[in-house]
Amino acid sequence: MKFTVQRQQLIASVQDVMKAISPRTAIPILSGIKLEAGPNGITLTGSDSDISIESFIPAETDGMVYVEQIEAGSIVLQARYFSDIVRKLPEKTVDIETDNKFNVTIKSGKALFKLNGQDAGEYPQLPEVASSNSFDIPSDLLKNLIRQTGFAVSTMETRPILTGVNIELADGTLSFTATDSHRLAARSVPMENAQFSISNVVVPGKSLNELAKVLDDDDDNVQISITNNQILFQTSHLHFLSRLLDGNFPETARLIPEQSQTVIHVKTKDLINTIDRASLLAREERNNVVRLTTENKQDLHITSNSPEVGQASEEVQLQAVEGDDLKISFSAKYMLDALKVIENEDVRIEFTGAMRPFVLRPADDNSVLQLILPVRTY
Amino acid sequence: MKFTVQRQQLIASVQDVMKAISPRTAIPILSGIKLEAGPNGITLTGSDSDISIESFIPAETDGMVYVEQIEAGSIVLQARYFSDIVRKLPEKTVDIETDNKFNVTIKSGKALFKLNGQDAGEYPQLPEVASSNSFDIPSDLLKNLIRQTGFAVSTMETRPILTGVNIELADGTLSFTATDSHRLAARSVPMENAQFSISNVVVPGKSLNELAKVLDDDDDNVQISITNNQILFQTSHLHFLSRLLDGNFPETARLIPEQSQTVIHVKTKDLINTIDRASLLAREERNNVVRLTTENKQDLHITSNSPEVGQASEEVQLQAVEGDDLKISFSAKYMLDALKVIENEDVRIEFTGAMRPFVLRPADDNSVLQLILPVRTY
Repeated sequence: MKFTVQRQQLIASVQDVMKAISPRTAIPILSGIKLEAGPNGITLTGSDSDISIESFIPAETDGMVYVEQIEAGSIVLQARYFSDIVRKLPEKTVDIETDNKFNVTIKSGKALFKLNGQDAGEYPQLPEVASSNSFDIPSDLLKNLIRQTGFAVSTMETRPILTGVNIELADGTLSFTATDSHRLAARSVPMENAQFSISNVVVPGKSLNELAKVLDDDDDNVQISITNNQILFQTSHLHFLSRLLDGNFPETARLIPEQSQTVIHVKTKDLINTIDRASLLAREERNNVVRLTTENKQDLHITSNSPEVGQASEEVQLQAVEGDDLKISFSAKYMLDALKVIENEDVRIEFTGAMRPFVLRPADDNSVLQLILPVRTY
Repeated sequence: MKFTVQRQQLIASVQDVMKAISPRTAIPILSGIKLEAGPNGITLTGSDSDISIESFIPAETDGMVYVEQIEAGSIVLQARYFSDIVRKLPEKTVDIETDNKFNVTIKSGKALFKLNGQDAGEYPQLPEVASSNSFDIPSDLLKNLIRQTGFAVSTMETRPILTGVNIELADGTLSFTATDSHRLAARSVPMENAQFSISNVVVPGKSLNELAKVLDDDDDNVQISITNNQILFQTSHLHFLSRLLDGNFPETARLIPEQSQTVIHVKTKDLINTIDRASLLAREERNNVVRLTTENKQDLHITSNSPEVGQASEEVQLQAVEGDDLKISFSAKYMLDALKVIENEDVRIEFTGAMRPFVLRPADDNSVLQLILPVRTY
């Protein structure tokens, strides 16, 4: 194998595939990056067997030459060393060459590295994902779906299915749902180009968070293909493959209250800042709990109390309020997580009593839903 | 106690005194910040008993009003909570008020915090430092002296005196010296306004590093005063007090070689980059050791070798070379630490053989000296 590659391109590809590589892997060769050179360019692969990422650097695209003097072949290099070396090389191009004993020479300007490689034949084959059931989604929209739901997955392995995000496609609507059983985050978008339906496709939250990191903002579209136990996200230069979680995602629709006793409208940013301040005195004693109180159907107060340290209280300007007065306590962290992805100047919060889940939405938009269970404090 | 203070000023002062506060302190009240209000302004104090920092916010300076409506008094507040609260308050000013039960009210806009304070009478008195033996030094020069020597202190408590920087003043020259017994860093500057001499004043490296962080770039001068066991650094708004280390700093002058067998001149940045790259393959197997070789009195090579992983080698352009050819091995980390504070485009390195300490200096300047002991590799 032999080629000369633009270093910036190589750095970007290495960074992408490194996201799939775990320093502590049970399969030693998976601590390496696989490099494959072919007539059209070079492909880098990283995998921890849950996630696999392939990044392709084309020999030439849009008249730009990225890879030259290619002799086909493949090798596996220790990921950590290769990544550090590539990042610190001095020149704009890098020459990489292997001999038939898996010795690899990396040259850039006067810098010369000789690394011990491994046989790429030992590297596991990635599963094939048939693309009959596939649909396209704009990259920035996919990143937003992940951002607005991925934070709400469970971090506990007691119910593994809750560590994933449930992806459903039905009646031309794509929806992402995550819940850790104390809160729920959901977002739906119209997806009119998909004439089929999928359900109970549960992707590990960790996979989606890594995917969001490797998707470029200037990627146009991502093609999503699903099989029984794998999901493939494809862009022009990237293949991101993740296993799916086994099991049935819980039915969540029945958790959403259909009626409300109190509805408030408030500036999202004001509420974020106030709860952030109140949470300073809520951290330890009472598990980060703050209290929200409405009075005289016009005043909104946020308070917190930590007997050892002191109390915080603050009034928030209400934009509108309907229904009964209310006292309710909840986790400041869950509330902040939810408010931060509302993406609207105003948030609408619908309560059905102090002990019932409540719902946050952007003031004029039902496509985002954040549900939080309150905390009993007396 | 009562006052209204500009929040930005308060944030800056709190940040400064927080540098002296250790979250794990044996004296509970030292986890607090002391606030004192007087007719001229307010003083904040933090201390871990090794370091004490006092920051003063004047009521008014240069026509700017920083503190208003002052009623004299004092209180101690839990540092972590106070610092977080002040940082997150909504408005430009903060009102702080205490009652006679050490309850403290902090108000800014609609945000209201009530904290449990402690009696400032319980807070330890800082030692007085008489200022008979004091001299002035420009703040940026002091920061540079610290930066160019402080990294070389020992991190091991086996010889506590080596965890400090030795400050000497003699014959109108101020010098800072640090050594961990594997390397030595020294910097001297003329100090003609000081008509006295000091010796064996050893300041903990940690104190100096914290001092460098709290000195503003726009502080003009720092006044340094020394007693038997304390050193005080003073600016217009800051008092930084540190204990001195007990014991005798080793005589270091005799360590500096007087002659050299090989002298090379090389671009500092080139050598930094090359050694940084070579160190990638020197990290584990051989304790971060790289090798420097001169050949034919004109070529300079840097190499490293990690049998499991591979080798690195690179030629560096020499600006000049005098004397014999040389092969020498040393810690890449020590070499990089030294090169990074040379502050000159060209570095001069003087060797007296493969097993003897060698010396780095800026090409045209003897005020900075970096000495490194080589490593035996065969």
